[in-house]
Amino acid sequence: MSGTPGSDPHTHHGPSTPDRDTPDPARAEAMRALFAPRSVALVGATDKSGWSRATYENLRDNGFPGPVHLVNPHTDVVHGRRAHRSLADIGEPVDMAYVMVPTNAVASVLREGAAQGIRSYVVLSSGFGETGPEGRRREEELLALAREEGLTVLGPNGNGYINAAASTTPYGLPIPGPPRGGPVGVVLQSGALASSVLAFAQSRDVGLSLLTAMGNEMMVSVTDVIEYLVDDPDTKVIALFLESVRRPDEFARVARRAAVVGKPIVALKIGSSDLASRTARAHTGALVGDDDVVDAAFRQLGVVRVRSLEDLIITAGLLARTGGIGGPRVGVVTPSGGACELIADRAEHEGVQLPPFAPETVARLKKDLPEFATVSNPLDVTGYVVVDRTLLGRALEAVAADPGIDAVLLLCDLPQRYVAEPELVHMHFASLAQRIDEAPVPVVVSGNVLTDVTEVGREVRENTGFPSPSGGIDHAMSALGAAVRWSSARAAAAARPERRVRRAPDTSPADDPVPAEQRAGVWTEHRAARLLDDHGIPVVPSARALTEDEAVAAAERFGYPVVLKATADGLGHKSDIGGVRLGLYAADAVRRAHREIAAELRSRALPGAGTLVQPQREGGVELLVGVLRDPSWGPVLDIGLGGVWVEVLGDSVLRLLPADAAEVRDALGELRGAGLLAGARGTEPADLDRLSEVIARIGDMAVSLGTGLGELEVNPLLVRGSRVEALDALVVWH
Amino acid sequence: MSGTPGSDPHTHHGPSTPDRDTPDPARAEAMRALFAPRSVALVGATDKSGWSRATYENLRDNGFPGPVHLVNPHTDVVHGRRAHRSLADIGEPVDMAYVMVPTNAVASVLREGAAQGIRSYVVLSSGFGETGPEGRRREEELLALAREEGLTVLGPNGNGYINAAASTTPYGLPIPGPPRGGPVGVVLQSGALASSVLAFAQSRDVGLSLLTAMGNEMMVSVTDVIEYLVDDPDTKVIALFLESVRRPDEFARVARRAAVVGKPIVALKIGSSDLASRTARAHTGALVGDDDVVDAAFRQLGVVRVRSLEDLIITAGLLARTGGIGGPRVGVVTPSGGACELIADRAEHEGVQLPPFAPETVARLKKDLPEFATVSNPLDVTGYVVVDRTLLGRALEAVAADPGIDAVLLLCDLPQRYVAEPELVHMHFASLAQRIDEAPVPVVVSGNVLTDVTEVGREVRENTGFPSPSGGIDHAMSALGAAVRWSSARAAAAARPERRVRRAPDTSPADDPVPAEQRAGVWTEHRAARLLDDHGIPVVPSARALTEDEAVAAAERFGYPVVLKATADGLGHKSDIGGVRLGLYAADAVRRAHREIAAELRSRALPGAGTLVQPQREGGVELLVGVLRDPSWGPVLDIGLGGVWVEVLGDSVLRLLPADAAEVRDALGELRGAGLLAGARGTEPADLDRLSEVIARIGDMAVSLGTGLGELEVNPLLVRGSRVEALDALVVWH
Repeated sequence: MSGTPGSDPHTHHGPSTPDRDTPDPARAEAMRALFAPRSVALVGATDKSGWSRATYENLRDNGFPGPVHLVNPHTDVVHGRRAHRSLADIGEPVDMAYVMVPTNAVASVLREGAAQGIRSYVVLSSGFGETGPEGRRREEELLALAREEGLTVLGPNGNGYINAAASTTPYGLPIPGPPRGGPVGVVLQSGALASSVLAFAQSRDVGLSLLTAMGNEMMVSVTDVIEYLVDDPDTKVIALFLESVRRPDEFARVARRAAVVGKPIVALKIGSSDLASRTARAHTGALVGDDDVVDAAFRQLGVVRVRSLEDLIITAGLLARTGGIGGPRVGVVTPSGGACELIADRAEHEGVQLPPFAPETVARLKKDLPEFATVSNPLDVTGYVVVDRTLLGRALEAVAADPGIDAVLLLCDLPQRYVAEPELVHMHFASLAQRIDEAPVPVVVSGNVLTDVTEVGREVRENTGFPSPSGGIDHAMSALGAAVRWSSARAAAAARPERRVRRAPDTSPADDPVPAEQRAGVWTEHRAARLLDDHGIPVVPSARALTEDEAVAAAERFGYPVVLKATADGLGHKSDIGGVRLGLYAADAVRRAHREIAAELRSRALPGAGTLVQPQREGGVELLVGVLRDPSWGPVLDIGLGGVWVEVLGDSVLRLLPADAAEVRDALGELRGAGLLAGARGTEPADLDRLSEVIARIGDMAVSLGTGLGELEVNPLLVRGSRVEALDALVVWH
Repeated sequence: MSGTPGSDPHTHHGPSTPDRDTPDPARAEAMRALFAPRSVALVGATDKSGWSRATYENLRDNGFPGPVHLVNPHTDVVHGRRAHRSLADIGEPVDMAYVMVPTNAVASVLREGAAQGIRSYVVLSSGFGETGPEGRRREEELLALAREEGLTVLGPNGNGYINAAASTTPYGLPIPGPPRGGPVGVVLQSGALASSVLAFAQSRDVGLSLLTAMGNEMMVSVTDVIEYLVDDPDTKVIALFLESVRRPDEFARVARRAAVVGKPIVALKIGSSDLASRTARAHTGALVGDDDVVDAAFRQLGVVRVRSLEDLIITAGLLARTGGIGGPRVGVVTPSGGACELIADRAEHEGVQLPPFAPETVARLKKDLPEFATVSNPLDVTGYVVVDRTLLGRALEAVAADPGIDAVLLLCDLPQRYVAEPELVHMHFASLAQRIDEAPVPVVVSGNVLTDVTEVGREVRENTGFPSPSGGIDHAMSALGAAVRWSSARAAAAARPERRVRRAPDTSPADDPVPAEQRAGVWTEHRAARLLDDHGIPVVPSARALTEDEAVAAAERFGYPVVLKATADGLGHKSDIGGVRLGLYAADAVRRAHREIAAELRSRALPGAGTLVQPQREGGVELLVGVLRDPSWGPVLDIGLGGVWVEVLGDSVLRLLPADAAEVRDALGELRGAGLLAGARGTEPADLDRLSEVIARIGDMAVSLGTGLGELEVNPLLVRGSRVEALDALVVWH
């Protein structure tokens, strides 16, 4: 399995460089060879198998330029053509073998192929890792063989791929119509859904450069294919259907490369309902789902996440047409008032802004539109379009020229079934198409509802250049919102220093302030606070007191009111034993609190017993800042607001570490209670720059402490104006 | 305009009965006549108009059984047929006139028609209320004429309707293919979107009984058409596209009738982004949007709200097939693991439960499925379906028989483009169709993605009875969730006593405890509390003190600690002047507080100055319970949690009044902070029955006070266990 450590498929090309910035040229070459063979052999071809027939017909009917050889050890004729008894019998060079033999025969086919110089394989055969321990063993043996022989294997248990750009379709299920080449590269971790994605892309008239059904990812991984697509000149957008992100570090690296070159990645990642694997926060016990971490990771990496197969293809298709969009301000042109309001509703939900038009635009539109039309954004040019066919185009031109608009949404569907007056209709769409081409901002086209782009519509598109609509209003607005978010995130994601999931060694580095032998157990407040302080994180002043006199002396040094807290080695939840006393205004109250806490600790025979004396802070907003360790993604920063926010609402945001202050500031803005930090309820507005800087420093500290750190929680972190202070903290070592 | 008071279209049938429980028989008869004419005249028919051509061709080509007469005063031949110069020239009885003449000629056509005994009209002509004050005047004149003559008029400015069941299609835009009859009745307040809805319904193979584009609703309103559809035996589900609910009282009445007879209403109501008209809450100033009120109303009335045109038709189509669903537990049968997870993700979001299968179901499936299949819900029968075509059907049968399942979702799409082996394919689908028919629970069928049901698929459906899929996974899950919610809400909505928006008279009824002359201004705490108490709402004990001695005496009667609050005539926000003192533990503190408050009030020269003394309550959860008056829907109950909940999160729920305790309890469950009432954060769990009863009583009181009551707010209402008490209140009279 590809998730197994050391299963890197290309170690034979040289030393493994897991954190390299650029792709391995040999690996890239192997992927190119896999996806563009000049000749193919179908091994295990037989009239009895639907897979065999489909693969053969796909290659035959969709213009594969090279020879297709059929191999069957038992018969001379398959699919009405001469078959070879073995790969050796073919007698001419073969670039790629598509393998459909029984499970037990796969290894010998690879061995035979290697002897014939065949380097690339698609293995459709199942019965490997997907079936249990026995199958996993078989898969490991197959992987070892492939590595030893220097082969590239896609699958097993995968349907193959469709390289529309190269007319190369070694794919085991019937393809609905000839695949239309285009700018979207699709990678799927589900074979059964590949056909549906293909059918939907056809129905939306979205062309695909490459579609790959990954199978078991024994050797070639999703990341490998993404990397190929990042470099592929035919691909403008990458669409992913993911069941799991198997190698987060590699994924993060290629996602960043995609952002740098400006290729959007759109992903449908399933498993958001999966409750299997969650991480609990130390103090609250509230759970953080794997899916929340994936969400945070995608956001930081500039990966657009969608919730449906429809949105996957529609969003990718839209981004392929528009590329980046300069901002969120959209001008809308429609022939219907009802559609305008529908669009306005969805725009609010998607964070798309519909600003008023500039005065010069309003003036121009007023001249162009019928008298009874209302000139506003979204614009209803009225049903008068039926009478004056130029109305929509002129309105589009005027709105596109508005200086306060970053993109235009034009509501205009292609004809579906028949065209009454073809020449008139073609002229109309050709004129709109020209205006779209000449518009100074991207123009997104949508219909009202999501119905197929039919042959009739496709013909109009081909003859006039008018784009096929992105969807109905609902999906087009989702896609437009996603495009706007991607565009604004892209620059930031590309500009950031490379984000790696650091797998720090278990031994502490030379400059680590915490010697390895001390990294153990639970560090309570006193030691945790010193650690924070060492890393430049502001901590509330605090003095340890072993006697009542010491406690009073500290209190008088700080000034009243003060707080007393129990401290002892191994004491975790001090509030559970009544070990936190707030609001102590005088010496006698301090004495009593110290006496009672000390008695409680003595009764538990905890070593190092005493109290911590701290000045009591008034006002401000309390945050909870934690660092969790996700088993796949590594250390994750977890930021929430104190009180009901995290405990009742689960209102927290996550960021992969390392995260800089700018990312933390973004994250704070996503909190539902963000208004509190801005000064809602009469509190002093928080200095968000200062707060973000301190939180980022907490994250940096956690990263620098390496994998020995199990968990870190600062709770509360108090902010009041520009004063930011950790009031309590907990460190858990592995 | 139909929104104008007194514009009831059928006053000529007898005295108006705006709150009647059953529809007016004469009105019902008029609607039946409108939608099922035996003959039609197209007045203003001309070759020059696309509308005329479309209407004529629609009637001619879609099987209208009666005569279609063309009327044009200037020519003898229109659309290649003989035309009449006037309605009188026709010389035989005409049931309905479709009017497309210029604006100014509409009235004379109606007058002429009335003379010929024509009772029903569709007016396509525009230039009326939609164009401004001048047009509104014209529309009012037309309405007066129609009333006087006893006519029924749909429009003006409307495209007409398509009555597929009666093959009657007086509709002004081209219809994409012959309209397929079926169980969904559609009513639209947008003409331009009607064609899209029609096209989408065709693409989903959802048959329509009637589609009506309302136009200006001068006379026939959306409510009239819904009422017709509730009684129409061909209609099983009613789908609405609404820009505004013009007569909430009428709408509520017909919605309740639909719930009683078990016909779901699905509505796409636009305008959720409309910020124009909002109501502010008294204390917090936070805004309640019109759309929030509509949301609450629909929920109470059992109207399913959807967000897109696609969901409108798909949800209506699904409900027409399944009817009510017994509960939220769904068994899922698919041929794909990827689809299973996608469905699980969406199910969580839609409130659809996917419980584990019963042991006997698991045993049965284990026998039927390939060895490597995992038997769980959702079920992936595996790609082995390609080899064994009976697999899906047998799995469906087993899952449908599971005793813990309320419905089945079967993932199986109709073929789209061609069928390789038609007989085999038909046998396969026929066998599945039989299993669906025989299943003891409803079976919902969905494809993976939303692509059109094509002619090929439709043929399979017609030959085998296998239903057209409801959608792709995404939309089918939205629709399934909506169906589950409708089913559970339906019984409750039907069982409740009729909910009318009471328009109580401005004079107080005889038994009103508040005489009319006193209903004025702002009633602050003392008077408001007495009003609550009079209505049986528990209020914290309180004593008014004019002197320090009186304050201390009251405090000692209640026991310490106590609260002192300023009270004076016309004093609204007492906390703004420091008029609330909490935590007074002794007589001297009470004296000082009284002295200071009295001095402050004296300095403002407010009459009736004094303090209120109350026992201070500790712990519990604070709620805010308000009653707002929505300009359309009347009094609305507004329930939120105190503190950050309403102020920062806007977390409140609304219910139209009157609302009973059961409805209030439902509403409380919708609060995001509902966990607090259940005892999150260590508070005592609230007695929800008691709390709901008290809140319902507050609503009842507001209703009984009539329209003179502007606003009522109990803030906070404190609940601790079964003790529920109003701690403060405010009443604003108009």
